[in-house]
Amino acid sequence: MTAAKARKRKAADAAWSVVDAIAFDANGLVPAIAQQFDTGEVLMMAWMNRDAVAETLKTGRVCYWSRSRNKLWRKGETSGQVQTLKDFRWDCDADAVLLLVDQTGVACHTGRRNCFFNAVRDGKPKVIADVETDPTDLYG
Amino acid sequence: MTAAKARKRKAADAAWSVVDAIAFDANGLVPAIAQQFDTGEVLMMAWMNRDAVAETLKTGRVCYWSRSRNKLWRKGETSGQVQTLKDFRWDCDADAVLLLVDQTGVACHTGRRNCFFNAVRDGKPKVIADVETDPTDLYG
Repeated sequence: MTAAKARKRKAADAAWSVVDAIAFDANGLVPAIAQQFDTGEVLMMAWMNRDAVAETLKTGRVCYWSRSRNKLWRKGETSGQVQTLKDFRWDCDADAVLLLVDQTGVACHTGRRNCFFNAVRDGKPKVIADVETDPTDLYG
Repeated sequence: MTAAKARKRKAADAAWSVVDAIAFDANGLVPAIAQQFDTGEVLMMAWMNRDAVAETLKTGRVCYWSRSRNKLWRKGETSGQVQTLKDFRWDCDADAVLLLVDQTGVACHTGRRNCFFNAVRDGKPKVIADVETDPTDLYG
């Protein structure tokens, strides 16, 4: 076996040992938080199934499960705004995942850097982040 | 109306306007990520229902919904490890919440600072954080 093949097999073995450690819910999903690894910014929350977890760990590119499209969602496949995996963590109950990532461009489909741009200001809901990239440039 | 009463009413109005903005799931819940407001550390992920969101916004103390105990879970009520709310945010689809908090002590019931202490090292699952507080001191 070549060194490259050995690395690939090791990554695959690690991937499935993590999949087996995760407590997926009744729908076979686990919530996954994506956090920018160096700044600590929480970028988004999405869902993963077994295949999404395994693919993410094997490729080093974050892959979610799209509940609306009912298929694997390789983040950035259409928009180019990929997430490179820096570290994969899961919590005490194994029912939530924290992805430390390096986000290319913006994480949010609205063109904002992160998805959590709604807050309360002066007693009312308010959008607190600007659009950085025109969404039609991402998906047009 | 006194100034204190006016503030309280304003907080209550704001709380319910946020509750109405959130897209709770079929079980009436929304996932909530707690992040330490000044360091960016992701502490935990739990769930909130309408009452938990409203109480958190009205009191400034984080309250979740416990799915295992099927009741409101005032974080720190037993352990003393409360979370003071610094900012309440929600995402583009309004189906995830980000709580910026000031965590007293440790967030995790295992006595670790945060719940995401499982990672992959050298191809195998590994616990990467130490217990800081004996759990029997928290719940004993």
